[in-house]
Amino acid sequence: MSRTGVAIVGASGYAARELIRLLLNHPAVRIAAATSRQDESPRLETLHPSLARRIDLACEPFDADRIAEKASIAFLALPHTASLEITPDLRRRGVRVIDLSADYRLKDAQVYADWYGHPHTDADGLKAAVYGLPELFRERIPLADLIANPGCYTSTSILALAPLVAENLIERRGIVIDAKSGVSGAGRSPKQPYHFPECNESLSAYGVGRHRHTPEIDQVLTEVGSPGDPVEVIFTPHLVPMDRGIFATIYAVPKGTAVEHDLIELYRSFYARSPFVRVVGHLPSTKDSAHTNFCDITVRVVRGRILVLACLDNLIKGAAGVAVQNLNLMLGHPEETALL
Amino acid sequence: MSRTGVAIVGASGYAARELIRLLLNHPAVRIAAATSRQDESPRLETLHPSLARRIDLACEPFDADRIAEKASIAFLALPHTASLEITPDLRRRGVRVIDLSADYRLKDAQVYADWYGHPHTDADGLKAAVYGLPELFRERIPLADLIANPGCYTSTSILALAPLVAENLIERRGIVIDAKSGVSGAGRSPKQPYHFPECNESLSAYGVGRHRHTPEIDQVLTEVGSPGDPVEVIFTPHLVPMDRGIFATIYAVPKGTAVEHDLIELYRSFYARSPFVRVVGHLPSTKDSAHTNFCDITVRVVRGRILVLACLDNLIKGAAGVAVQNLNLMLGHPEETALL
Amino acid sequence: MSRTGVAIVGASGYAARELIRLLLNHPAVRIAAATSRQDESPRLETLHPSLARRIDLACEPFDADRIAEKASIAFLALPHTASLEITPDLRRRGVRVIDLSADYRLKDAQVYADWYGHPHTDADGLKAAVYGLPELFRERIPLADLIANPGCYTSTSILALAPLVAENLIERRGIVIDAKSGVSGAGRSPKQPYHFPECNESLSAYGVGRHRHTPEIDQVLTEVGSPGDPVEVIFTPHLVPMDRGIFATIYAVPKGTAVEHDLIELYRSFYARSPFVRVVGHLPSTKDSAHTNFCDITVRVVRGRILVLACLDNLIKGAAGVAVQNLNLMLGHPEETALL
Amino acid sequence: MSRTGVAIVGASGYAARELIRLLLNHPAVRIAAATSRQDESPRLETLHPSLARRIDLACEPFDADRIAEKASIAFLALPHTASLEITPDLRRRGVRVIDLSADYRLKDAQVYADWYGHPHTDADGLKAAVYGLPELFRERIPLADLIANPGCYTSTSILALAPLVAENLIERRGIVIDAKSGVSGAGRSPKQPYHFPECNESLSAYGVGRHRHTPEIDQVLTEVGSPGDPVEVIFTPHLVPMDRGIFATIYAVPKGTAVEHDLIELYRSFYARSPFVRVVGHLPSTKDSAHTNFCDITVRVVRGRILVLACLDNLIKGAAGVAVQNLNLMLGHPEETALL
Repeated sequence: MSRTGVAIVGASGYAARELIRLLLNHPAVRIAAATSRQDESPRLETLHPSLARRIDLACEPFDADRIAEKASIAFLALPHTASLEITPDLRRRGVRVIDLSADYRLKDAQVYADWYGHPHTDADGLKAAVYGLPELFRERIPLADLIANPGCYTSTSILALAPLVAENLIERRGIVIDAKSGVSGAGRSPKQPYHFPECNESLSAYGVGRHRHTPEIDQVLTEVGSPGDPVEVIFTPHLVPMDRGIFATIYAVPKGTAVEHDLIELYRSFYARSPFVRVVGHLPSTKDSAHTNFCDITVRVVRGRILVLACLDNLIKGAAGVAVQNLNLMLGHPEETALL
Repeated sequence: MSRTGVAIVGASGYAARELIRLLLNHPAVRIAAATSRQDESPRLETLHPSLARRIDLACEPFDADRIAEKASIAFLALPHTASLEITPDLRRRGVRVIDLSADYRLKDAQVYADWYGHPHTDADGLKAAVYGLPELFRERIPLADLIANPGCYTSTSILALAPLVAENLIERRGIVIDAKSGVSGAGRSPKQPYHFPECNESLSAYGVGRHRHTPEIDQVLTEVGSPGDPVEVIFTPHLVPMDRGIFATIYAVPKGTAVEHDLIELYRSFYARSPFVRVVGHLPSTKDSAHTNFCDITVRVVRGRILVLACLDNLIKGAAGVAVQNLNLMLGHPEETALL
Repeated sequence: MSRTGVAIVGASGYAARELIRLLLNHPAVRIAAATSRQDESPRLETLHPSLARRIDLACEPFDADRIAEKASIAFLALPHTASLEITPDLRRRGVRVIDLSADYRLKDAQVYADWYGHPHTDADGLKAAVYGLPELFRERIPLADLIANPGCYTSTSILALAPLVAENLIERRGIVIDAKSGVSGAGRSPKQPYHFPECNESLSAYGVGRHRHTPEIDQVLTEVGSPGDPVEVIFTPHLVPMDRGIFATIYAVPKGTAVEHDLIELYRSFYARSPFVRVVGHLPSTKDSAHTNFCDITVRVVRGRILVLACLDNLIKGAAGVAVQNLNLMLGHPEETALL
Repeated sequence: MSRTGVAIVGASGYAARELIRLLLNHPAVRIAAATSRQDESPRLETLHPSLARRIDLACEPFDADRIAEKASIAFLALPHTASLEITPDLRRRGVRVIDLSADYRLKDAQVYADWYGHPHTDADGLKAAVYGLPELFRERIPLADLIANPGCYTSTSILALAPLVAENLIERRGIVIDAKSGVSGAGRSPKQPYHFPECNESLSAYGVGRHRHTPEIDQVLTEVGSPGDPVEVIFTPHLVPMDRGIFATIYAVPKGTAVEHDLIELYRSFYARSPFVRVVGHLPSTKDSAHTNFCDITVRVVRGRILVLACLDNLIKGAAGVAVQNLNLMLGHPEETALL
C-alpha cells in the first residue's frame, strides 16, 4: 500500500515534534515534507535531537506548490495568524489542511478579531472549517478539507462539560473552569515567565478573564447545547511547574438534583464510542494521561454542586494526537491508528 | 534581657524545622527543649541537617514536668489527636501552648469528631483556645494560654475571603475555593502519593468534598460574617509538584455590582494594620511569598463574578511563621519580630 | 500468526509498567499473565491507571505451572534475590526467563554474595545466564533460556566505555564514572530519601564506593577487554530531581594521544550495527533519550583526558526496553520491533 | 549607630535580589541606592515582587558621583566586562567595590582576555583586587578597596580542594571536578537552554573543557599550593533541573596513602575558624545548604582515590552571601552578621 504523503508546516515547536513522533508510527502515512522559517533549512534532528535515527529530513522554506506536489494533507503548527496566510494557497492546490493554530476555530470573524487583535482574512476558509474534536463532531470530519484543531484547554473543558450541557443538566452561565497547565503549553520560545528559575517551584494564574480559549469554549458548548441559551464560562488558567498536562476542575450548578453515580453513568454512555475518553471512578492525575492521547474524566457532587475533573496531555490529546485522530478520520483509518 | 524559654514538642517534621529556624533569629526567645518520639534522642541536626552549626540540642522524650521547668511556651507540632493528650498537662503546669495541629481549631466537638474520626477529649481546652489568625483575632491572642494555630489552606482561604464576608458583599453559600498546594503540606512521612516519581510532573485533586480544612474555613468565615448566615464553601485541594506554597483561586457571587478597583481598595483598607498581608495589583505567584511570612492577595472581577487569588508559604505563613506571629503577640513583642 | 505468550512476574513496579506498555505494541507477542504479591489480585489498570483501556487483565499469585501453561517467556521484575527462588522452577518447565533483577548478572557467586549480602542459590542458572546487553553480546542471546538483563547505570557505563576498552585505548584502573539518575531508578516503594520534599530541589551523591552496579561494570568491561587486565572503576551515583534518565560523565586516562574526532569515528564504527546507540557530536541531554530505547553518547578530550558522556532512559533502555530487545533476539524478530 | 550606606549596582538579577534580602537584615548597613539599566527607573519591588513591603526604593541610572554621595561600598552585580567600565570611577571617588562579576578574579590580564574574549582595561584595579574568599584570604579583605567576589562553581571547588592542595596531599594535574548546578546559576535572562520545558526533567553537561571558572580554580588553588607546581583541573559543569545549589564531586589522586578519617580531621582543622564551612560525616545534599551561607563538605576514599563532595547555594554562599561576608570583614563586623 502506498502511504499518504503529509507535510508538517512549522516543524520547530513542541506540538510539531510530537506530531512527527506519532506519524512515524503510522502505517499508512509518510512525512513527505517539513518546513521551518529558520534559515539554513535545518534537519529535523537538529531541531529535535530526540528524533535522531527516527527521520532523516531537512526542512525547507514554505512553498505551497512544493507542498502540493508531495503531500495531500498539511498539518500547520504555526503561530496564530500565520495559518491565515497560507491556508487558502494550500486548499486551492487541493491540499487538505489540519490547522493546529486558533485561526479557524472561532466561527464569528469579529470574535476572532476581538480576541486575537487581528482581522480574519479568510472568510471562505472560516466557513469551510470543521472543528476537529472527534468526540463531538466525528461525522463531519471525514469530508472536511480544513480542520480547526482544538486548543488544549478547550478540549479538556469541552470534553468535561459536553454531557452536562447536551443533557441540559446545568446552568449555562457562570460555569467555573479552573484550569492548570504544564509549561510546554506556552510554546518553545524562551520568555521571562517560562524561564526555569521563574516558574519552577511556583504556581500562578495568568490571563484571568482574558484567555483566548474562553470564546472557543463558549462557542462549542453553546453549539452542544442550544443557540438560544449561550454558555458563558469563567475560565482561569494557571501555570504549573511541570512539562505536560492540563487539568481542569469545573464547578457547575445543576438544574435539578445531581447524583454522582448517575452522572458517571451518563458520561460513560455519552463517550461509549470514543476510544480516547476514559471516564474513571478515581480522581485522575495528569501523569496517567501524559504521553498518551487519552482524556481522563470523573465527576463528583459536593454540597449540591457538580464538579467535573478532567485531564489530558496538552501536546498529544490537546494538539498533536487529536490532529492524528482527525487525519485518521479524514483518511478512513481506524481512529486509534498510531495513537496507542 | 533574659530570653523566654520555648519548647518544640514534635521536632522532626517540616513545620518544626521552619519554626526552629525562625526562632533562632528571635532576639527574645531561646529554644530550651525539643522532643521527639524517636528512640535514641536524636540531635536536631541529625533530624534536620540544614540546622547544623545553628543549634546544638538533643531531643528528649516528652515529659510535661521537664517542659514546664524549661519553657513557658510550648509549640506542638504533632499529628492530629496527639495534641489532645498533652495539652491539658502542659496548661496545668502553666505552660502556654501554641498547637500547630487541628485539635483545637473546631469549636464544636462534634464537628471535630465527625471530620477527624476521633472524639474530642479536652472540652476545657477547646473552650479556652483562641484561633491564632492574628489578622482577624489580633486582640484575643495576647492573653491566650492556648492558641489553635490555623491550617495552611485555611489561612489562605480565610484571609482571601474575610473582607468580602465581613462587608457582606458576597453570597455565603457555594463559594468555590480551588486550592493548590506544594507537597510539603502533606508532611514528612513517606507515602505512595508523595513518592517523587508519583507526584513529580503530575497534578491531581484529592480529598474532593471531604478535606478537613472545610469545616474550619466555614466556621471562621461564619464568625467573620454572621452566625445566622453560615458560610459554606466548596473546597477542592490539589497537589502540585513543588515543595512549598499554597495558591487559592476563589470564585464568589457578589450581592451587588462588583468593581475591581473598589475591591482592591477595600482589601488594602481591611489589612492596613496587618504587616504580612500584601494586597497586590498583579497576579501573584507562590514563589514571591515562598520562604516568607507574607500572604499575597489580589482581586479580579470576571463576567460578574468576584475572583480572589491568594497565596502564601504553607510552612511559614501557613504554619511556623504564624506561630511565631502568635508568640510575638503573646509575649508583647512587635508582630514582625524574627519574621522579616 | 499466533502471538507468543509472555508473562510479567512482578507487575507493580515502574519497569513492569513500561514493559507492559511496550509489549502492547508488539505485533508478535501477547501478555498472557501477570503476577503480583499483593492480595486481591489487582487488575493491571488498578496498579497502573495509565494502562486503562490498554489491557484488561487481573494479576494472579505466582504459580510456575500456570505461567508455563500460558507463556513461553517470563519477564521477572522482582526485587533482588526473589528471582533466585523462581527462576529454576520456570526453566525446569521450559519457560525462558528474562530477569530484570541483578540475580544472574554477576558470574562469580561469591561476588554476588559479597555485594548483595545473600548467597547465590542457583549455580546452574548462573552458568546458563547470558548477560543481555545486545550491543555487546548480540550473538549469544538468541539461544539463551535465561537472560540477565543489565542494570541501568551499568548499561550506560558499559556502552560508554566498551569501545575504549575493547580497543585498549585507556588505562583500566581508576576510570571515573560520575553518574546521575532520575528518581524512578530507586523503584516505586516510598522511602524517606525519595519523598518528594526531600529529593525535589536537591542533588546528592549516594552509595559512594559501594553501589552494587560497580562489580557488574567491572566484570563486563573486563570481559570486553582482557581477563588479565581487570577493569576497576570508581563509580559514584547521584540522585537528580527528575523522573527518568541516567547520565554518565566518564573520565579516562588514554594510553596514547587521544584525538576527539578519531574517537567519535571509532564509536560510530563500533556501534554501526546497533540501532539504539546514537553517537552524537553535540553534548547530549537526558531528555532527548527519555521515553525511548536510545542511548546517546559523545566523546571529548579535555587536557589530555578522555571524557565520555552518555545517557539513556533508565526505565526503557536501562530496563524494559532492553528486555524487549532481548526478547526480539530470542524470538527472531527484528531488534527494533515495538521499540521505535 | 549610623548605618553604612551601600549601593547595589545592577539590581535586577537573582544575586542582587538575594543581596538586597540579606542586607535588609544587616543591623549596620543601609541600602542607599540601587541602579538598573532598564528605562523607567523601576522600583525594587517591581523587579522583585518578593521584596514588596521589605524595601521602598526606586532604581536610578548609574552615576558614579551619585553613588559616591550615598554609599561607601558598592556591590556590582553586572554582566562580565561591565564592571571594568565603572570600577575605576567608583574607586577614584573613594567607593570601595565588591564586584560579583569575574572581571577582577583572574590575576593575569591575558588569561582574562583569552577566556572572556575581551581585553582587560583596568590594570590598576586588577593589581589592587583581593580575591574575596574569606576562608582562604580572610586577612587580606579588611583593607581591600576592591574585592573580586568568587564564582559559584569556583568557591565550591576551591573550598573542597584547598586542604588537600595546601597540605600537598594530591597530584596537582588531572584533578577531576564533576560539578552540577541549579538553573539560577545561568542568570535571569530567558534563553533557550533554560526555558522550562527544555531543562526541566533533563540533565546535561555544558561548556565541557571550556567553562570560564576553570582558570579561576587553577589560579587560586595554585596559589594555595605552590607556584612551581600549578594545579590543572578537569572541570565539567552540568545543568540540573532545580533552582539552586551547586554540588561538586571531586576525584583526586593522593600522593601517599589516603585514610578517610584522617582527611575528615584535616578538613575540620583547616576550617576550624570558618563559620560557614561545615565538614560533615554524611553525604551532603544541596537542599541542606540551600537558602543558607553554608558550604557542606565531606571526604571519601574509594579504591585509592580521594573523593571530595561539596555543595553550597550558588546565589548565597556562591554569590550574595559571600559578598556580605566580605562586607562584614571590610567594615569590621562579625563575619556571620546578617548571614545566619
